Amino acid sequence: MKTPDHMTRPILRLSPKRALLLLTLCLLSACQSMVTPGDPLPSWREGPRKQAILDFVHAVTDTASSDYVEPADRIAVFDNDGTLWAEKPLYFQLIFILDRIRTLAPQHPEWKRTEPFRSALAGDMAALGKQGEKGLMQLMVAAQSGMTTAEFRTIVVDWLDSAEHHRFDRHYTELIYQPMLEVLAWLRANGFETWIVSGGGQEFMRPWAPDIYGIPSQQIIGSMMEVQLDQRDGKPVLVKIPKLHLIDDKEGKVIAIHRFIGKRPIAAFGNSDGDLAMLQWTAAGKGRSLKTLIHHTDATREWAYDRKSPVGRLDKAMDIAKTRHWVLVDMARDWKQVFSFQK
Amino acid sequence: MKTPDHMTRPILRLSPKRALLLLTLCLLSACQSMVTPGDPLPSWREGPRKQAILDFVHAVTDTASSDYVEPADRIAVFDNDGTLWAEKPLYFQLIFILDRIRTLAPQHPEWKRTEPFRSALAGDMAALGKQGEKGLMQLMVAAQSGMTTAEFRTIVVDWLDSAEHHRFDRHYTELIYQPMLEVLAWLRANGFETWIVSGGGQEFMRPWAPDIYGIPSQQIIGSMMEVQLDQRDGKPVLVKIPKLHLIDDKEGKVIAIHRFIGKRPIAAFGNSDGDLAMLQWTAAGKGRSLKTLIHHTDATREWAYDRKSPVGRLDKAMDIAKTRHWVLVDMARDWKQVFSFQK
Repeated sequence: MKTPDHMTRPILRLSPKRALLLLTLCLLSACQSMVTPGDPLPSWREGPRKQAILDFVHAVTDTASSDYVEPADRIAVFDNDGTLWAEKPLYFQLIFILDRIRTLAPQHPEWKRTEPFRSALAGDMAALGKQGEKGLMQLMVAAQSGMTTAEFRTIVVDWLDSAEHHRFDRHYTELIYQPMLEVLAWLRANGFETWIVSGGGQEFMRPWAPDIYGIPSQQIIGSMMEVQLDQRDGKPVLVKIPKLHLIDDKEGKVIAIHRFIGKRPIAAFGNSDGDLAMLQWTAAGKGRSLKTLIHHTDATREWAYDRKSPVGRLDKAMDIAKTRHWVLVDMARDWKQVFSFQK
Repeated sequence: MKTPDHMTRPILRLSPKRALLLLTLCLLSACQSMVTPGDPLPSWREGPRKQAILDFVHAVTDTASSDYVEPADRIAVFDNDGTLWAEKPLYFQLIFILDRIRTLAPQHPEWKRTEPFRSALAGDMAALGKQGEKGLMQLMVAAQSGMTTAEFRTIVVDWLDSAEHHRFDRHYTELIYQPMLEVLAWLRANGFETWIVSGGGQEFMRPWAPDIYGIPSQQIIGSMMEVQLDQRDGKPVLVKIPKLHLIDDKEGKVIAIHRFIGKRPIAAFGNSDGDLAMLQWTAAGKGRSLKTLIHHTDATREWAYDRKSPVGRLDKAMDIAKTRHWVLVDMARDWKQVFSFQK
């Protein structure tokens, strides 16, 4: 075998002066991942909440600190709806489901006469609310089963490309919180693995969340429907079948964290009572941990809601956050900017 | 705030000569992750199987190749029993379960009179075999539920510390295949994420597999029992309850890959018909992929078994591997060394 040319040549020929320049560049590039130039959380106003997040990250990454945590154990979990992106007036996935029911209606003339489809097609949210969780589940299943997982991905992508949020005339994927994007990026720059642990559908998030949040599909956990292995044109496919597999909410989030990660997170971010169990699970770890709740207090730039909201209710978790001195982010006060398009 | 001393000083003062030396060191260190000195698979004999693995990795990591795959999509999945460690005379987890049934027997005097416990306690494998899958499930559940996940971890670690494999007088965690450790390490050095997708228990593997294989808990998928969130001494705990959640075998492996990874693997390693669906799923991807089966052909250093073995049966998958020209590793011929203690 002929030895390739580059293996016999000296790696570089350069003058000492040029070497000094190159060395400087080389060192600067090596240092890049350690030094954060300026403020890592520019959309956060100075104050106790920002400081608590900064202090926590410094403490667990400083090898001289008694709170130091090995990179392999730097697990941070994030709820999605109301924590990374907005959830009003309805969870965006529910809007997707209602849109899809309308799209499918011509193939199901019987839907005009049967609940919960009748109310869904009429856009009668009050009547739909009376159908309860069971009704919602029926819509969910009708809208999201019968196709392959690849087909479902296309359906989600197409909807996100065309649908717009009525209040902001923006795509739903633009309604993400700029300050949280900075937290995600800064945690990753400090060796954290960032995970989504959402009550929303895993397969609804995976088509867009990797690009939008920088979180790969294998770190996205959500509610799941059953799938089954089938054959189409001699090739294996996974088909979504009309049965729920897992509701990733409340204690379901703790169970999912155990199954998917197998390590206790040291940082958890949520915004509702559905995240309480996950934050308590994080708090029950041995070392230092960060428990953060986003309190929606900004009716001008976003929405203001908490104890009485049917979507994203923050009630019991808020009381516990106050008692335990968790980080309770006041959106109006703590965030200079909410959405990136609101600069 | 006082500016720290190191922020005002120039980073380094050095002569051009010294700079050249440092630059060389710096470049060498930067190159370390790209250049593999010598043979990355020293326990593999030269031949078509070793070459197929080497060629595949070169092709998908070479940016000039039409088979190039972005690092984010370099997913490699491995079965565990019979692929990464041995599985004879019985799956090691089954030996653990039988040992544990013996340990628990004094608390269950009724087991002496009821199947499948009677046969398990008598060590009567033939009678146990007649109890079928249902009997096995009963043993599994009795041995592995009722405790917290943390307690179960300790039980597994204690067993592995004390139990020994009868044929080799070695701990079970020593019965891992040296050539496969090299494949794991080499794939990771080439930007792959390595995953275990095993029919064995996820919670049985997680206490030891990260150290032994270098695979973190969040990349270990296996069969799972249900867990439930409970409180002990005012703290949340997860308790293993006597109900199966997921059998990660056959088509279950494909479903688990979809849920846990959400990307199609480009490399899959297995050894039995239980891995066939996972290999076919890998093969159905668009780009180049590597499908590998370990054929146990070495009765001297390990075991020889295939089509008729109740444990690790390799029958249908072997036929398909031959038809499709998958990599069918002949353990006796292709591996210089099987276990690392057999040097």
